[in-house]
Amino acid sequence: MTATLAWNRYGKAQVRLVKVRRQHDPHEIVDVTIDVQREGAFEPVYKDGDNRLCLATDTTKNTVYAFARQDEINHVEAFAERLATHFAEQPAVSRARISAVEHPWQRVSVAGQPHPHAFLRPGGEQWTVVAICDSEGTQVTSGLTNLVVLKTTDSGFSGFPRDKYTTLPETADRVLATSVTASWRYRRGTADFAVRDRIRQALVETFAAHESRSVQHTLHAMAEAALDVCADITEITISLPNRHHLLVDLKPFGLDNPNEVFVATDQPYGLIEATVRRT
Amino acid sequence: MTATLAWNRYGKAQVRLVKVRRQHDPHEIVDVTIDVQREGAFEPVYKDGDNRLCLATDTTKNTVYAFARQDEINHVEAFAERLATHFAEQPAVSRARISAVEHPWQRVSVAGQPHPHAFLRPGGEQWTVVAICDSEGTQVTSGLTNLVVLKTTDSGFSGFPRDKYTTLPETADRVLATSVTASWRYRRGTADFAVRDRIRQALVETFAAHESRSVQHTLHAMAEAALDVCADITEITISLPNRHHLLVDLKPFGLDNPNEVFVATDQPYGLIEATVRRT
Amino acid sequence: MTATLAWNRYGKAQVRLVKVRRQHDPHEIVDVTIDVQREGAFEPVYKDGDNRLCLATDTTKNTVYAFARQDEINHVEAFAERLATHFAEQPAVSRARISAVEHPWQRVSVAGQPHPHAFLRPGGEQWTVVAICDSEGTQVTSGLTNLVVLKTTDSGFSGFPRDKYTTLPETADRVLATSVTASWRYRRGTADFAVRDRIRQALVETFAAHESRSVQHTLHAMAEAALDVCADITEITISLPNRHHLLVDLKPFGLDNPNEVFVATDQPYGLIEATVRRT
Amino acid sequence: MTATLAWNRYGKAQVRLVKVRRQHDPHEIVDVTIDVQREGAFEPVYKDGDNRLCLATDTTKNTVYAFARQDEINHVEAFAERLATHFAEQPAVSRARISAVEHPWQRVSVAGQPHPHAFLRPGGEQWTVVAICDSEGTQVTSGLTNLVVLKTTDSGFSGFPRDKYTTLPETADRVLATSVTASWRYRRGTADFAVRDRIRQALVETFAAHESRSVQHTLHAMAEAALDVCADITEITISLPNRHHLLVDLKPFGLDNPNEVFVATDQPYGLIEATVRRT
Repeated sequence: MTATLAWNRYGKAQVRLVKVRRQHDPHEIVDVTIDVQREGAFEPVYKDGDNRLCLATDTTKNTVYAFARQDEINHVEAFAERLATHFAEQPAVSRARISAVEHPWQRVSVAGQPHPHAFLRPGGEQWTVVAICDSEGTQVTSGLTNLVVLKTTDSGFSGFPRDKYTTLPETADRVLATSVTASWRYRRGTADFAVRDRIRQALVETFAAHESRSVQHTLHAMAEAALDVCADITEITISLPNRHHLLVDLKPFGLDNPNEVFVATDQPYGLIEATVRRT
Repeated sequence: MTATLAWNRYGKAQVRLVKVRRQHDPHEIVDVTIDVQREGAFEPVYKDGDNRLCLATDTTKNTVYAFARQDEINHVEAFAERLATHFAEQPAVSRARISAVEHPWQRVSVAGQPHPHAFLRPGGEQWTVVAICDSEGTQVTSGLTNLVVLKTTDSGFSGFPRDKYTTLPETADRVLATSVTASWRYRRGTADFAVRDRIRQALVETFAAHESRSVQHTLHAMAEAALDVCADITEITISLPNRHHLLVDLKPFGLDNPNEVFVATDQPYGLIEATVRRT
Repeated sequence: MTATLAWNRYGKAQVRLVKVRRQHDPHEIVDVTIDVQREGAFEPVYKDGDNRLCLATDTTKNTVYAFARQDEINHVEAFAERLATHFAEQPAVSRARISAVEHPWQRVSVAGQPHPHAFLRPGGEQWTVVAICDSEGTQVTSGLTNLVVLKTTDSGFSGFPRDKYTTLPETADRVLATSVTASWRYRRGTADFAVRDRIRQALVETFAAHESRSVQHTLHAMAEAALDVCADITEITISLPNRHHLLVDLKPFGLDNPNEVFVATDQPYGLIEATVRRT
Repeated sequence: MTATLAWNRYGKAQVRLVKVRRQHDPHEIVDVTIDVQREGAFEPVYKDGDNRLCLATDTTKNTVYAFARQDEINHVEAFAERLATHFAEQPAVSRARISAVEHPWQRVSVAGQPHPHAFLRPGGEQWTVVAICDSEGTQVTSGLTNLVVLKTTDSGFSGFPRDKYTTLPETADRVLATSVTASWRYRRGTADFAVRDRIRQALVETFAAHESRSVQHTLHAMAEAALDVCADITEITISLPNRHHLLVDLKPFGLDNPNEVFVATDQPYGLIEATVRRT
């Protein structure tokens, strides 16, 4: 049998980096988990066990920390770009991919004042960045994940087709809950990474205000709102799991349930995903 | 062989309850996961397979939802007390234990104004309640978990004993990070469940302000501060995992590291726990 | 306000230890995660920030690895006893608790023969050990967790009381599935730690063979069987979450469902726990 | 602004299905978690909130269970194909994707004999299937995940390049541990889904026997072995996280460590992935 190495990728995953900017007063902190992956012409490593091209993944990890010492990391996007460029320049590498998840911290407030060096990590929501460097240049994608939102009204689902397996009743008023994952591409060369908060606010406000006829319908409105508030992004991909809140049937106990008591379920769940692109 | 049923407990775990208070304008929401457990004289159930005393755990779940319909659930503590009392009154039950985890939601703000029916769940931090009802009456414990905090200075660890297995250097300035779990007991009969926020603030502010000589030292100061701000609590138990932030050695790369670049580690971790009681 | 340190405990959690016994042919391997916790008279550490009694948790971790070098670790129980005794002898310590979770590996088989140095970790099931050393001596508890079993028949649930919140129908034939957690105490001084496999087999065989009238009923039979096969254990505690398999209602689609198609649910779940003691 | 729906996909995730084949003696069981996703011309659903094309994800779930009643599910692959074909035929759908994870159960053995209706779920390893149906026809991919293996010798890593960030020493003898994820494509039209066990055995045996110069080197040998034992598969993709086992430095305690005592680490980890294709 003859076989060919059709695709390959290697690197270090889950490099946990915390940087304290101490020269700043008050202190600032950045907390990020980074994956580095490289593709390229590594056939001798795989086929012959010849490691002359195989930079150790341990070296990859060291590089991340050494770069972090020499970089302010004001935007994780820019830091990811620098890492991607560095790794793409190594022998045999055709493509370097940096994936970063940023864990946001808030400054603790004491007696109503921001504290100079104590922080609180709310958990849940995270910022994401992917930077890919290849012969075409560098492409950065920013995003967020685990942004959990819910609305208690202004959401219905009706008019859908009914086949022989359909039992779901139509509803004009349901609870809509989801955990938003979104990522957006910047126009090449012009990225202002400070737009994150504006995009996030557009997503949240649209979720809140939209008269939803389906998860798809709200997803599309959120995507349009994000494209509207930031001319520098060319497309946005949104993933919305439907975190079903099922109305509990209380009739067996002689009670009504006027859309008040729900069981929140984990599985199964509807999953709606789409990319909306500026034209 | 003869054997005796030395202890037993049964019930329903992970009952997911979401209640929307729609008669309020704006809507309010409570989101809680509840465990119900009963102890008692259930020998015939275990030994003989006689189920005449064995209320189904499914019934337990139904009861939680039916009670939720008829209760405002302004405080999860009071709701847990009612459930505990109900289950403790059933045949054969000597002790009922309700354990609840509340998942906090914040109101979404749109254009600077709170939205009437859209919410955001920050994730991470959760409120906890345990209500136990037995022949002594009902005891309520409130708490919080997964409150993640970090300080970039004002923390040292030195003067500790050095035995033959000690390699840790002394430090006068380290990053201190932890995920706080705390629970406190109310004086019987007088509980004002609205004190939660005050206790939480005392814990956070003390963590921030304390000149820490060890995790133990800071834990004790936090506990005292909580007892100080709320005369109705008689004791507090705090658990502080030490989320070690290890300084990265950059010397091999010709770089210094003036307390700036850290690797955040998950395991192993120091774990410090104590109960401080008012005397 | 005056406050007293009512209880305290500290140590290192999640120490990941893998030992290869290379002097053996074929190689043997032990893989264990260890928690060390100490209680004692540590008031000065908490109240005054005086660390002279506070052995670093980092030292604790080092000690585990140093002991592992000098011990065959033929039984995790005996290794845990040695560690507990060591830590209990340190200044101020009144009680040392070692908790260990062993991750079992199986030898890979190649062409039907056991391989001398390749192993497969099936995952799921784990062995557990707790050794506590205090002024009373040392007490060892062994156990297992995450042993997932299911039977497709020989399980019913009927004859239970029906109150106003009961909707569950009686059943004479249901799927019974659970994840067994068990722990048993050895008679002091006489423990033969090789009995694990025999106890595990008694638990599994009894689960399979028992005509179950309830989870409680089967739990009790399993406990008795374990006590029967090993005279050296004095009591056993078993925890059985009821992993409900709900029959899917296929009538809306013109189909019957003669106990064939189920939805396996994660939550909520019944939870049954008991201790059975030899008398 | 004008925007276009560049890509979209929706469906039901995490449908938990357990089927008992009772007409068989002894009983047989299949346990699987299924995701259904559809792509297609759903613009009116997204843009206009017009649900006439939007089959409810609840209907999708019902369909899975109804099909399960009418299918033996002897191979999850064939069941996934049937579902994919069904969903691809619905209005507006251009592509249906079924992703399934099978949780294997073993028959309990009692007194050395297989039990007719009691099962044990070892946990850990899972089988995976993806079936995609579009205008090109149906493509099935089978695989496995979470197959955890370790070898205590016959693994080295040396000869790799040393740049300014390289500190890793060369080693001729290290512990190699990984969690194998693999997936393979069948030649269209000829798939014999019974080859799974043969491919798995080839992967495990090659891992065990290979004189490894790197993870890449072993991955390639495993892929070739899989292609060798099954002429019906055209390519295989393997992902191998390097579960680093770091030798503990015991010199500070006056002890050597002849490759015996290791700390098993979770993060960071090397991650090696490749596709090997028959030519």
